[in-house]
Amino acid sequence: MPANMISKILEKAVLPLEVIAPHVKTEAARTSVLRNPNMEKLQKGYLFPEISMKHEAHLKKYPDAKVISLGIGDTTEPIPRVITSAMAEYALALSTPEGYQGYGPEQGQMNLRKVIAEKVYPNMGIKESEVFISDGAQCDIARLQMLFGPNVTIAVQDPTFPGYVDNGVIVGQTGEADEAGKYAGISYMRCAPENHFFPDLSRVPRTDVIFFCSPNNPTGHAASAAQLRELVDFARRNGSIIVFDAAYAWYVSDEEEAGGGDNKKPRSIYEVPGAREVAIEICSFSKFAGFTGVRLGWAVVPGELRYADGSPVARDFDRIVCTCFNGASSVAQAGGLACLATEEGRAAVRRVVGVYKENARVLVDTFASLGKEVYGGADSPYVWVRFPGRRSWDVFAEILEKTHVITVPGSGFGPGGEGFVRVSAFNSRDRVLEAAARLRKYLA
Amino acid sequence: MPANMISKILEKAVLPLEVIAPHVKTEAARTSVLRNPNMEKLQKGYLFPEISMKHEAHLKKYPDAKVISLGIGDTTEPIPRVITSAMAEYALALSTPEGYQGYGPEQGQMNLRKVIAEKVYPNMGIKESEVFISDGAQCDIARLQMLFGPNVTIAVQDPTFPGYVDNGVIVGQTGEADEAGKYAGISYMRCAPENHFFPDLSRVPRTDVIFFCSPNNPTGHAASAAQLRELVDFARRNGSIIVFDAAYAWYVSDEEEAGGGDNKKPRSIYEVPGAREVAIEICSFSKFAGFTGVRLGWAVVPGELRYADGSPVARDFDRIVCTCFNGASSVAQAGGLACLATEEGRAAVRRVVGVYKENARVLVDTFASLGKEVYGGADSPYVWVRFPGRRSWDVFAEILEKTHVITVPGSGFGPGGEGFVRVSAFNSRDRVLEAAARLRKYLA
Repeated sequence: MPANMISKILEKAVLPLEVIAPHVKTEAARTSVLRNPNMEKLQKGYLFPEISMKHEAHLKKYPDAKVISLGIGDTTEPIPRVITSAMAEYALALSTPEGYQGYGPEQGQMNLRKVIAEKVYPNMGIKESEVFISDGAQCDIARLQMLFGPNVTIAVQDPTFPGYVDNGVIVGQTGEADEAGKYAGISYMRCAPENHFFPDLSRVPRTDVIFFCSPNNPTGHAASAAQLRELVDFARRNGSIIVFDAAYAWYVSDEEEAGGGDNKKPRSIYEVPGAREVAIEICSFSKFAGFTGVRLGWAVVPGELRYADGSPVARDFDRIVCTCFNGASSVAQAGGLACLATEEGRAAVRRVVGVYKENARVLVDTFASLGKEVYGGADSPYVWVRFPGRRSWDVFAEILEKTHVITVPGSGFGPGGEGFVRVSAFNSRDRVLEAAARLRKYLA
Repeated sequence: MPANMISKILEKAVLPLEVIAPHVKTEAARTSVLRNPNMEKLQKGYLFPEISMKHEAHLKKYPDAKVISLGIGDTTEPIPRVITSAMAEYALALSTPEGYQGYGPEQGQMNLRKVIAEKVYPNMGIKESEVFISDGAQCDIARLQMLFGPNVTIAVQDPTFPGYVDNGVIVGQTGEADEAGKYAGISYMRCAPENHFFPDLSRVPRTDVIFFCSPNNPTGHAASAAQLRELVDFARRNGSIIVFDAAYAWYVSDEEEAGGGDNKKPRSIYEVPGAREVAIEICSFSKFAGFTGVRLGWAVVPGELRYADGSPVARDFDRIVCTCFNGASSVAQAGGLACLATEEGRAAVRRVVGVYKENARVLVDTFASLGKEVYGGADSPYVWVRFPGRRSWDVFAEILEKTHVITVPGSGFGPGGEGFVRVSAFNSRDRVLEAAARLRKYLA
């Protein structure tokens, strides 16, 4: 791995002050402002910095190793030219009196909202006014948690992307974390092969908000129509709000999406009848168009979604968007429009998704050929591999030691991920093939 | 005013549900989730939607009127080509294997952080690691308020930009608003001509956080070195944190900046000795480089700034940036670098600022020639005009009726703005000259 990639990963880490500001004396003056107790509750250990450190240590031990990262879910394929050309054109036009635009609407350009409603949610009754353009799903999670505030109760899948919980901790929805890393006040819904990665809802307590990610990060499982119907019914019975994270929706295979009846894998929660009254959906251009750095996403908040007092959730969310945010970059929005507005753009991003999906297939086949229990990959860029009776970090270390391949320990996504590793398909075909060859050779 | 500008202004408004989602029946199902009580506290009246409605009504009454908006603080001058070319080039490179970048560091590209530390804060001891790149000052205000949390007390200037207060309400720092629009629990520091737009700090209670905007929006007053020393000393004595909003710093005139001693107008709080231990500074590319739509800004959090427990504020802010945000758009960052990295870029943005400053001078002269008490404009794009004994909204209405010029009623920025209107220099020279001619003719 080149040095600049390592430093890039390290830059993403939350570093100790000695690194952030080595010039600061520890005996420096203090204000008398009390630290936000919610910030104190956040756990100290972060997954990716920990992985970076182990990566670094590995490179010290094996300076000539060609490390291949199948760790962090960062896109690697170039963005199709039809999309970057649109961004470049938009940027250059900002230098002309006709093309210059100042503040756009905080909710996003209406043409982009419209094309998302039409192209991503055909026949689902989503209006352009219900689509709020954002700078990415992670930021929308933060804004949604600000919207809900400290008094709501939440449920999350276990394992899951840590953002839902961390933002809940920051706004004050939780107590302290226990030794396993579970915060008091949060309902963790176990999702494992044994329950087809779908919780037994008869045993899940009612919460105000349910965060549900499908296709799931990290398990790669795309919920079936039957599962999502069950989820929506559960929310409707309980008067709960679902936040459906569809960041990986474009990875659902066409045949799965087209499949009839219960086994169909919906790409949106709004394919499920009754979802409009109980569900918000968040999505992102990051993983399907390679916009991880460009930053663009959206949230759908249907007008029917109401609080107990009858007031529309969309109105408060609109206020959050206008007060805490000022719209996504207009240049990024021009790129988003190019992804979706024409068949050329849509075909281009499908091709990129296809590259990662083929990578995922290679990885699934590799682990399967090694006799491993392997999940995900078919409708997701993530492959979820079980190592029964072993600890995730030990498996991570063994794979790194034997093959110089970086994975992610499943336990980093919650206690329910223990005994698994997540393997990401986000890398070049060559590197994925090389990684697969090493895995076959050294893990056999 | 062209129809598309009106719809643009209207799009910025927070609209009632009947407009957002006219298809939704009011008797729709409800969840049983309680609305966030902090959201309920936010006042219903918003300034700019109210202005938009009056603007619309005016156009119905005078369909042929050529309305000139000197209202909203939105930039109008094209962005210099040297900057948009850099964005276009960066965008196009994203289509190449060599130029593609996925996630950048959440804190921003190190080269941009470095050039800000060097060029914006020369000789002020700001390290690149203390500069956090953002998608704009408004978003940083929201993130800072999330950082501080519900338990801190805050002080704001009166009048001031409403974002500090609104975000404080959302995170739960306040009680309800009174009839004048002041929230319980916030200390409002009156800034008026009588006190040289600087509060009598001997009468200001200690708060944990002090939001201070200079050059100020809306008064246009740039605090002097003596005033800022007093502010820093006050914060140090009280163990408070200053959040210094320097979004208009580039409007401080060179001669003012260069002026010796007490009368000098600093462009950064870090020009004041001792500020590093008590002050955060936020800034933005919006008003100096026309990036209102492109979205780029930064926050400086010095390593010396500590909570009462000795823990560094920067570490928690870093965690907020990594958890609630995922970095500013990489394309916008490429543009930001082009603004600051070369003398060509810096000269180009100075020319744009110069256009607005000359506009402001025209407006100041106009109101002065009418015998009005007029403030600001010299170090700011905002001109602050007093109409003694009159209500701001009445003056707004009279100016609109007589001259077809949109201003902003001062009372929209807090009770301390009553009796003033804010006139913005953000418009083309032609329109500003035309507005000035009308004002001279009809307000004489």
